[in-house]
Amino acid sequence: MPNKIRICLAQLNVIPANPQANLQKVLSFIEKAKTNNAEIIVFSELVLSGYMLGDIWERESFLNECMDCLDEVRRASDGITVVIGSIDVIKDKKNEDGRVRKQNTCFVFKNQVLVTKAVKTLQPNYREFDDNRHFYDNRKLTLDKMLSKAATSYNNFDIYDIMAENSHFNLNEKEIGIAICEDLWEKDYTISPMFNILYTTNNLASCIINISCSPYTQGKNNKRNRTFGGLAKKFRKPIVYINNVGVQNNGKTIYAFDGNSCIYDKSGNQINPFKPFQEGCETLELDLDTDFGNKGYDDEEDIKMVYDATLYATKEFMNQMGIKKVVIGASGGIDSSVVSAIMSKILTPENILLVNMPSSFNSMLTKDAAAKLAENIGCPYKVIPIQESVDLTKKQLKKVGLDLTQFAIENVQARDRSSRILAACAASFGGVFTCNANKSELTVGYSTLYGDLSGFLAPIADLWKGQVYELAKYINKGAGYALIPKASIEVKPSAELSANQDVTKGLGDPIIYPYHDKLFASWVERWNRFTPEDILKLYSDGLLEQEIEYDGNIRDLFKTNKDFIDDLERWWGNYAGLSVAKRIQAPPVIGTSRRCFGWDHRETQVPAYFTYTKKYLELKKELLEKDNG
Amino acid sequence: MPNKIRICLAQLNVIPANPQANLQKVLSFIEKAKTNNAEIIVFSELVLSGYMLGDIWERESFLNECMDCLDEVRRASDGITVVIGSIDVIKDKKNEDGRVRKQNTCFVFKNQVLVTKAVKTLQPNYREFDDNRHFYDNRKLTLDKMLSKAATSYNNFDIYDIMAENSHFNLNEKEIGIAICEDLWEKDYTISPMFNILYTTNNLASCIINISCSPYTQGKNNKRNRTFGGLAKKFRKPIVYINNVGVQNNGKTIYAFDGNSCIYDKSGNQINPFKPFQEGCETLELDLDTDFGNKGYDDEEDIKMVYDATLYATKEFMNQMGIKKVVIGASGGIDSSVVSAIMSKILTPENILLVNMPSSFNSMLTKDAAAKLAENIGCPYKVIPIQESVDLTKKQLKKVGLDLTQFAIENVQARDRSSRILAACAASFGGVFTCNANKSELTVGYSTLYGDLSGFLAPIADLWKGQVYELAKYINKGAGYALIPKASIEVKPSAELSANQDVTKGLGDPIIYPYHDKLFASWVERWNRFTPEDILKLYSDGLLEQEIEYDGNIRDLFKTNKDFIDDLERWWGNYAGLSVAKRIQAPPVIGTSRRCFGWDHRETQVPAYFTYTKKYLELKKELLEKDNG
Repeated sequence: MPNKIRICLAQLNVIPANPQANLQKVLSFIEKAKTNNAEIIVFSELVLSGYMLGDIWERESFLNECMDCLDEVRRASDGITVVIGSIDVIKDKKNEDGRVRKQNTCFVFKNQVLVTKAVKTLQPNYREFDDNRHFYDNRKLTLDKMLSKAATSYNNFDIYDIMAENSHFNLNEKEIGIAICEDLWEKDYTISPMFNILYTTNNLASCIINISCSPYTQGKNNKRNRTFGGLAKKFRKPIVYINNVGVQNNGKTIYAFDGNSCIYDKSGNQINPFKPFQEGCETLELDLDTDFGNKGYDDEEDIKMVYDATLYATKEFMNQMGIKKVVIGASGGIDSSVVSAIMSKILTPENILLVNMPSSFNSMLTKDAAAKLAENIGCPYKVIPIQESVDLTKKQLKKVGLDLTQFAIENVQARDRSSRILAACAASFGGVFTCNANKSELTVGYSTLYGDLSGFLAPIADLWKGQVYELAKYINKGAGYALIPKASIEVKPSAELSANQDVTKGLGDPIIYPYHDKLFASWVERWNRFTPEDILKLYSDGLLEQEIEYDGNIRDLFKTNKDFIDDLERWWGNYAGLSVAKRIQAPPVIGTSRRCFGWDHRETQVPAYFTYTKKYLELKKELLEKDNG
Repeated sequence: MPNKIRICLAQLNVIPANPQANLQKVLSFIEKAKTNNAEIIVFSELVLSGYMLGDIWERESFLNECMDCLDEVRRASDGITVVIGSIDVIKDKKNEDGRVRKQNTCFVFKNQVLVTKAVKTLQPNYREFDDNRHFYDNRKLTLDKMLSKAATSYNNFDIYDIMAENSHFNLNEKEIGIAICEDLWEKDYTISPMFNILYTTNNLASCIINISCSPYTQGKNNKRNRTFGGLAKKFRKPIVYINNVGVQNNGKTIYAFDGNSCIYDKSGNQINPFKPFQEGCETLELDLDTDFGNKGYDDEEDIKMVYDATLYATKEFMNQMGIKKVVIGASGGIDSSVVSAIMSKILTPENILLVNMPSSFNSMLTKDAAAKLAENIGCPYKVIPIQESVDLTKKQLKKVGLDLTQFAIENVQARDRSSRILAACAASFGGVFTCNANKSELTVGYSTLYGDLSGFLAPIADLWKGQVYELAKYINKGAGYALIPKASIEVKPSAELSANQDVTKGLGDPIIYPYHDKLFASWVERWNRFTPEDILKLYSDGLLEQEIEYDGNIRDLFKTNKDFIDDLERWWGNYAGLSVAKRIQAPPVIGTSRRCFGWDHRETQVPAYFTYTKKYLELKKELLEKDNG
């Protein structure tokens, strides 16, 4: 007998918090699978409800609706096995918050009957994930079973069998194992759900299905290919991986789901029937003994995927929220130009409004670049100067005895642009306005609250300044001409808020690219987050460039140790201090990195104390003494 | 032998993320306890580091500093037993995010030696708590031990013994059990750590020490008295409860820790040596057999504790952040008046600046009230009108072909006040400005982003409008005169942004107090969060008033079912829709309720779909038919 299954992989664009809409698509995919004579159709994790729902999980009427929709899926399973991720509501048991118990579950239905249901064993609680807040997991269930056995008779029992007892089912005389997302990302856990399944089935499981709800992150596909491919090869069992597409958010951070559903053969090779971000279902004859051949994995072209994910997330989010018109403050600089270019791929030109808001400090260079950008896009372009209003503010405050410093006036300008003009333009235009901040600025709060740090969405705020430049070049290459004007790419980055930031004199922002990109990334994105103590130690040992992957010599940037330390303390003080307050009130960010601001980077507002650990102060003293010695 | 211990309870004002500062206080309290001949001193949970640190927990240099400080505590334990909560870093083990393992631990030191260390068993992951994100708990440790035993020989073993093996120690021939915070809030868990301790010690433990880091919430003290008192009585064992004071935040939500450290005798009666929010340490001779006498618990006077907590949190937060001057937009309405009154208890008058910013729609009534308030406080008061700037904005937009609707102009006014004037005033004054929003407004987004929804802190945004009035009266009662002018309390709440909101004609905001307070609370604060489906069902059954505790007849407010439904859908649409976007960018809130916006109320930005569950639509149809029938 050939060792084959006819399987349909369903990669849905899941609409979060809309079970009825998702159900309709699930039912239509099941019909399609039946038409194609599939034995089995597999949907992703929490496909009816969506995953990132915040505390919508606490509404019982919503949970009931999910259960009702799930029952319609069961009723549609005549003549086919349906594997589907959905919430299981256990009415007579409690979650640990006292609410009704909810389990993140993989259901298997056939001929309108429940075949088995497996509860997620490993629940992620890092980065943007909060599974334990909402879901009771299979580890707790296992411990509960053991506690009840312990309480009765201390019989011998097998913990592995208990853990995996519901995680496999029979499909036409083949045993199939099931795992939910993190269950196969087992590296950092003391438990291996895949091992447990093979153990309890006496290694008879012929393949493992993994249903996931896994957002796109730079480099994650490569990592999953290594991890899942490695498990398939290690256990000599194929793995079927199903992930959804679409966009979901946790308030502060918006994620694109890239799908990339695929099959790993028992040697760990991969076939991938879908394009990233593509909705659809594909039926195929899967030979469980076959070897797809070692084609390796397509190494992702990073900037292409970042662009695709950013564009997709922005577009889908706007689509979900019903946003059809956008106003962009166009300064002529690189950030607003890239955001404008992205919007031009989503909306037709008449639905984009570019507004340039010069003060006396803005150069012809950048003003011309902004106008040129609008011309390239073919969208309306308005110039609304802010000088008169800024002067009025100064005058009104002076009249009541309040003076403004130079620095304060810089912020007055930034707020005048966003809160006074752009917000009003958006209301008039019938849309919203964007926040064009990048990650380097957001890290150190180099932006004005209620000024350039406002807007409905910050599409590029998870990209370092260097990546924004890369994106600009990639976009222009794709366009076949300088859609983003050359001047915007070549001008020195500058807020143009004072004479000290005059780009025509080569002046501009105090952030040194790419050094600061790399330094800041070591504070934000490293798994062990660096602090000034780590930085100073590495600097002192001559290892800093290497550790933060800076392609240059840091000692060329700073004349003395003191200069280096002053710079470090300035930016760290901002990052760990005032910029936290700014980020608390910042717009939602499209997350693409391995660590995004917002939900993925939990912050507390405290003074930047931990600059001054004992060890830091000792290192600093030593280095300053070397300056003098 | 008398069954007594001489115990020192240490109730610290913990400075979050500042182990060195906390260590100094811990050491000085240990000295004090020694002077007072205490056998044992007990500190609260995570007393060296603080608890709400966001992802600062991911910085290894910070963890090292915590361990170094802990070691200094160990060295100070000559001649005394020190019980202290701190982070334990297990260098050779991993957390499930792949980082170094961290355990929320209660350490017991005596004579510079570690006596035992107990790891938290029950970790809360609801409301503002996220323990599993950072800490490996005793349940996982237990499961790991069992897995390793299962893997070897399936010997009989006792899961209760494994769980509690480190959770007790000997103090001068008495056995003492230890539990960490949630460990004794066992109601919704399948595990009872207190039972486990008594089981493993053959019921010989003479008392249980609970170290906590437990923020103030309305009604929580009463609930803890019932819970902890109940456990003490049930097991006939005294419980010593230690909690810290101070303020900690999770970015979006700021919590006051009220301390309220106390002792429950074996009958569940309580003695409480500290005032709420009071730092200090108290040594006392505790007779473990005694009965304090059934004095009952002081029923908290809710509004007093809410006031105390709000004032304390605001003051301590400003103190932590080094904020010494505050600007308040004083409209003459109730919200800004209450915020001003609170600030007047924190800062001297010269450090408070009240700014009234009239447009053509502001009445003399409210303007006079604002001036009177400033006079009462004795602080500077400025009037800065916004009409000229609003007209300029209209003119500038019109010039480029952009028209503003009446509604858009209301928002222009609100943003002009906050982002243009108040932000500039704060910069000039050398301080920050407040957000005066209340919870009713925040729930339905009845406020303007970058307008009245901006500021460094929203001190009363966790209080329903009705509570704000209560607070105003309480403050005036305390002051002995109308510190908050009578007009501010009596005037109809109004944004005064258009002729339709003319208070002199009795016009104002569309929110109906107190009905909407109660309705909104059922969406936000109920443990099972109500949705329109629940509301409609209760309304239809005539049970809504009772369920939401509204003291009136809802049918008096609405002429028809349709009117009721229109109102419900309007506000729910705002709550579940656009107001989420506003809250994402709202200022930090002082949390005092059982559910606060921000960290405690996780939200996702989705269209307000779930209004339209199948059941809701059916109920709605029925009710509308009754209107017509």
